[in-house]
Amino acid sequence: MIKVGIIGASGYAGGELIRYLTGHPEAKIAYLASDTYKGKHISSAFPSLTGQDLPVCESFNGDAADRADVFFLAQHNGWAMNIAPKLLDAGKKVIDISADFRFRDPEVYEQWYKTEHKAKDETRSAVYGLSEFKKAAIASANLVGNPGCYPTGALTAVLPAVSAGLIDPAGIIIDSKSGVSGAGRTKTEISYLFSELDESLKPYNVGVHRHTPEIEQEVSEVAGRAVKLNFTPHLVPMIRGILTTAYAPLVRDVTTSAAIHIYRELYTDSAFVTVLDEGEYPVTKYVSGSNYCHIGLKADNRTGRLIMMSAIDNMGKGAAGQAVQNMNIMFGLPESTGLNRPAVYP
Amino acid sequence: MIKVGIIGASGYAGGELIRYLTGHPEAKIAYLASDTYKGKHISSAFPSLTGQDLPVCESFNGDAADRADVFFLAQHNGWAMNIAPKLLDAGKKVIDISADFRFRDPEVYEQWYKTEHKAKDETRSAVYGLSEFKKAAIASANLVGNPGCYPTGALTAVLPAVSAGLIDPAGIIIDSKSGVSGAGRTKTEISYLFSELDESLKPYNVGVHRHTPEIEQEVSEVAGRAVKLNFTPHLVPMIRGILTTAYAPLVRDVTTSAAIHIYRELYTDSAFVTVLDEGEYPVTKYVSGSNYCHIGLKADNRTGRLIMMSAIDNMGKGAAGQAVQNMNIMFGLPESTGLNRPAVYP
Amino acid sequence: MIKVGIIGASGYAGGELIRYLTGHPEAKIAYLASDTYKGKHISSAFPSLTGQDLPVCESFNGDAADRADVFFLAQHNGWAMNIAPKLLDAGKKVIDISADFRFRDPEVYEQWYKTEHKAKDETRSAVYGLSEFKKAAIASANLVGNPGCYPTGALTAVLPAVSAGLIDPAGIIIDSKSGVSGAGRTKTEISYLFSELDESLKPYNVGVHRHTPEIEQEVSEVAGRAVKLNFTPHLVPMIRGILTTAYAPLVRDVTTSAAIHIYRELYTDSAFVTVLDEGEYPVTKYVSGSNYCHIGLKADNRTGRLIMMSAIDNMGKGAAGQAVQNMNIMFGLPESTGLNRPAVYP
Amino acid sequence: MIKVGIIGASGYAGGELIRYLTGHPEAKIAYLASDTYKGKHISSAFPSLTGQDLPVCESFNGDAADRADVFFLAQHNGWAMNIAPKLLDAGKKVIDISADFRFRDPEVYEQWYKTEHKAKDETRSAVYGLSEFKKAAIASANLVGNPGCYPTGALTAVLPAVSAGLIDPAGIIIDSKSGVSGAGRTKTEISYLFSELDESLKPYNVGVHRHTPEIEQEVSEVAGRAVKLNFTPHLVPMIRGILTTAYAPLVRDVTTSAAIHIYRELYTDSAFVTVLDEGEYPVTKYVSGSNYCHIGLKADNRTGRLIMMSAIDNMGKGAAGQAVQNMNIMFGLPESTGLNRPAVYP
Repeated sequence: MIKVGIIGASGYAGGELIRYLTGHPEAKIAYLASDTYKGKHISSAFPSLTGQDLPVCESFNGDAADRADVFFLAQHNGWAMNIAPKLLDAGKKVIDISADFRFRDPEVYEQWYKTEHKAKDETRSAVYGLSEFKKAAIASANLVGNPGCYPTGALTAVLPAVSAGLIDPAGIIIDSKSGVSGAGRTKTEISYLFSELDESLKPYNVGVHRHTPEIEQEVSEVAGRAVKLNFTPHLVPMIRGILTTAYAPLVRDVTTSAAIHIYRELYTDSAFVTVLDEGEYPVTKYVSGSNYCHIGLKADNRTGRLIMMSAIDNMGKGAAGQAVQNMNIMFGLPESTGLNRPAVYP
Repeated sequence: MIKVGIIGASGYAGGELIRYLTGHPEAKIAYLASDTYKGKHISSAFPSLTGQDLPVCESFNGDAADRADVFFLAQHNGWAMNIAPKLLDAGKKVIDISADFRFRDPEVYEQWYKTEHKAKDETRSAVYGLSEFKKAAIASANLVGNPGCYPTGALTAVLPAVSAGLIDPAGIIIDSKSGVSGAGRTKTEISYLFSELDESLKPYNVGVHRHTPEIEQEVSEVAGRAVKLNFTPHLVPMIRGILTTAYAPLVRDVTTSAAIHIYRELYTDSAFVTVLDEGEYPVTKYVSGSNYCHIGLKADNRTGRLIMMSAIDNMGKGAAGQAVQNMNIMFGLPESTGLNRPAVYP
Repeated sequence: MIKVGIIGASGYAGGELIRYLTGHPEAKIAYLASDTYKGKHISSAFPSLTGQDLPVCESFNGDAADRADVFFLAQHNGWAMNIAPKLLDAGKKVIDISADFRFRDPEVYEQWYKTEHKAKDETRSAVYGLSEFKKAAIASANLVGNPGCYPTGALTAVLPAVSAGLIDPAGIIIDSKSGVSGAGRTKTEISYLFSELDESLKPYNVGVHRHTPEIEQEVSEVAGRAVKLNFTPHLVPMIRGILTTAYAPLVRDVTTSAAIHIYRELYTDSAFVTVLDEGEYPVTKYVSGSNYCHIGLKADNRTGRLIMMSAIDNMGKGAAGQAVQNMNIMFGLPESTGLNRPAVYP
Repeated sequence: MIKVGIIGASGYAGGELIRYLTGHPEAKIAYLASDTYKGKHISSAFPSLTGQDLPVCESFNGDAADRADVFFLAQHNGWAMNIAPKLLDAGKKVIDISADFRFRDPEVYEQWYKTEHKAKDETRSAVYGLSEFKKAAIASANLVGNPGCYPTGALTAVLPAVSAGLIDPAGIIIDSKSGVSGAGRTKTEISYLFSELDESLKPYNVGVHRHTPEIEQEVSEVAGRAVKLNFTPHLVPMIRGILTTAYAPLVRDVTTSAAIHIYRELYTDSAFVTVLDEGEYPVTKYVSGSNYCHIGLKADNRTGRLIMMSAIDNMGKGAAGQAVQNMNIMFGLPESTGLNRPAVYP
């Protein structure tokens, strides 16, 4: 039984980690840290967890390493880099949900996050936890930088086309639409009020969103050259789900059916990725509450472009679900252990 | 391993039964019947079930009894009464999700459902599957009439006060608010379109809703006398959840705290019912996607009334979840087997 | 042309007053006060007002009386009582959207709002602005306490039955369901975030909501005796609308049709209240964005109770719309001037 | 006073036309045709119109030309081409909301709509009613093909960049997101039920949506050469609003600020189009219920692309609002007559 610690238990990612792990047959939550709810059962933060057998929340202190075998760090950006090194030194495994260990080049982090990186060596050697593409590296990693929600949706949609040489990576345009839970539980400004967001749709951080360099890092690695691309996030009046619609110029003649075949080959061993039939497109509700990802493809011969679409739950495959999947891989379990429950529909 | 058959697999209740049962360690879905999707994997009806190991849908014929140990009937009202007797004769257990076996008096059914009852003996001896109140009878039953969604919410809220003699049953007023999935997947009139229901709230079937006699039957049984009461359903712009707010005159002096104590005593062995602390009230989201029920109480001394509130998921405790709970009880398993996963939040 | 001043222009009530008044043929907004947006066009607060010809926002100071003929005070409770007396002394008319002038007895205000009332004489002589029931008094008033959103819906539904002697006022139970905009634009706690409220329904302030004494004051006045009643508010995942479902024991035999006739008589001259046909019930969407109110009735002879339902827009008839209606009455205009645009549907 | 006839009054476009026209000072609805509601007040179809002074609905027959000066045809595609010629022959003006008169080349219509065009001459000489770009032609037209909702949003966003030579038209990618009301009031399949669409987002008709050739026709005209482009529509869980995000390669160096300047010049005389400041992006809620359009721009120098975004109400500027604007232009009125009421917010 893997002993699990979650630091930052009262945020949405923390709550979702708990939800997934309560159904995991090989893991047990041994440690929950939350300053806000210290001394309380986590149901004070999430009444949906009432009745679950869970340890009382504690205030994190630096010496918690002996409490668990693996730690999920679910705090704001800039926090994990102060904590992870000590946990790693104590021989623990660490899966960081924040952005701190997503970049191989700490300068890219510093440029986009406007924060000095304090664990440069660790981030250089950390593994980017995009499970389907980094399985071997994750299996032997002690530190995983869990991907951002948007990059997970975007990369799952475009990387097979890049690696198969179907498209020109320099022409990639990624238009993403996310449910509101991606904003987390702490942004209590007017603009996140129900009445402001319900029945409304908007783009934001156009051209400057911090998930851009994360997508570019991985596309560049697969493309074998530095790639810059467009990424535009939108906020959608729903709680969960990211729908990514990506466009790129085809560099060779390919039918939709052939593209689907290529994608299916690549994802043949993936428990969580389904490539839909021709003429079918992903719907966020079909993966809501789960770790699944649906992909749809359209080769548009009128315009010579490939349209690559994916649907994930930003809290599932886009955060906590993939983090648990990575834990499974790190501990030599089948990747779907405890994660194969279907989406909640409707 | 219990072999399970589901007839009416492509409706919302059918899909939710499948979702719960895919996570059940002691049951296996052996038979799925759906005329619409015969010959297909049920993911044709519910793409959320893509990748799940499930039998192909078949068209139901009368001789399916040998395919499973227990059958969930998830068809429209008036259907199960034609089918259940044969399954029972073959020695199978039957849990009917429709209204056909909820009434001990078939005349009440005929009066409210405007349909001749064709299995009068069976309905007289069937057990009303309100798990927390009929556990012993369910344990030895072969035929369970699974409660309606509204009655489950209403009865869970008011029955303890009735049995403890706190309130005058003749004065009970039940004001219920339901998510739209309660209307099922077949009502494709204009009035169920997204644009008609979203951002809107309405009462319907005021004074004439068919769940009224079901609530009255159970309240009367506990009260020991015939009770008539008001029940008003409302349609709320959300998918899942029923919030019941019930009012009744207090017949003896009781504080909120004392009422909570009485309820907690009654529900002390219930895995799924939580009675909230004084000043806390149920929220449908906290039980969404689960079989849990939250209850809140307020003894209003200004007016001499007790206010009893409950939140359930109409698809969970209000339908498929409670049906699986009843299966567990019928087969001698702990009632929470395969059902103790927390709600999906947010 | 009536010169109008709005103090508290950047809240939801302020914005809605502006929206209604931009279409008013006999009034012109001459003064807008908002500390947050001083020196700016109000479109900084409400981009929906971009392009409208409106005065720049100013910071309110005590000497604004000469800027307008009538002032709408749309600030938090406890503010207007410091300001209104000076405006009244200067001969101006005042319509207060807050609770400060709704109570004839300042002690009731002090008891429920936990605040000393600093304009006791003014509140004793102010007129409660429930337009349909106080038309004559409003016409000659200088100070109107505009009703709360819940009381407007509740009183419009129950007062005719009280005045006609159909029901026992002591038995009134009011179950109200409101859209989220009623919480205003300033409550930026976690619990008002989109992800917390969407797809969820909950009761709140059960038995202690401050709108209770306001409803009781008006019911008592019409009943001719002190009445206490139950009022339970619920928060619904939609932006606008209040649906009120009220119950009371019938004290004489009356059919639904007869009750409808009585209500129609009472509302015969009302431009904004429609009493629906038998078997039809109010739907909030049908009045959304407007000053209209729809009423439905059901005399339930099984239980001897009258069920009275109403739908309003909490921002329209429940706040800004009724305030403008009151302004019309105060200035001798037809009450529907500038207000007769239909609801926005769907 | 312009006498107006609306044929197809009970659909969403019909209802919205009525809503706008009830507030129009120079027009009066003289004729409403709806087979479904013939002999009834239109409030049978739209209870939101209860109390409005409107003619009773009639069943359309070919000889209605004498009933009005201008006819809005709000029927399904393929209907107007049978009717419009007769109304035009009788000297009436016609504004068709369907697709029948949007194409100068009837073969394009026949290819995409799979229907023989029966009024080829009329469609060749009809005016495409994109008000801001065709004002002079509309002013002298008798037959206007009112633009589709998506094309209105897309063209308003991209045409200025095309006409100014900022972008390569061959590289235009249009990613659009629409509220559900765009699907109309007649699609009563399962997939339009509330529970299926709420909390979900999906692309549809990828690469084959019928609004594609409409966008291409107008872009080609402005570009001076045949242009093919990508257009991908998405369905968003909200009722109203279209957000368009369009991408194209910049063909000359331009800053965001310079692009904004160019757009503002072009729209300088437009009552309904606002080009937002740098760093601000359109939000559908800010134009909901109105005829306004907000545009945001971002010149992304990292990738050499211009990002052009617009927000409209698909029922307003995307259908009924623009139709009324076109009527104003056809009758020599200021284009904003009866249309300058702000959006409904929140």
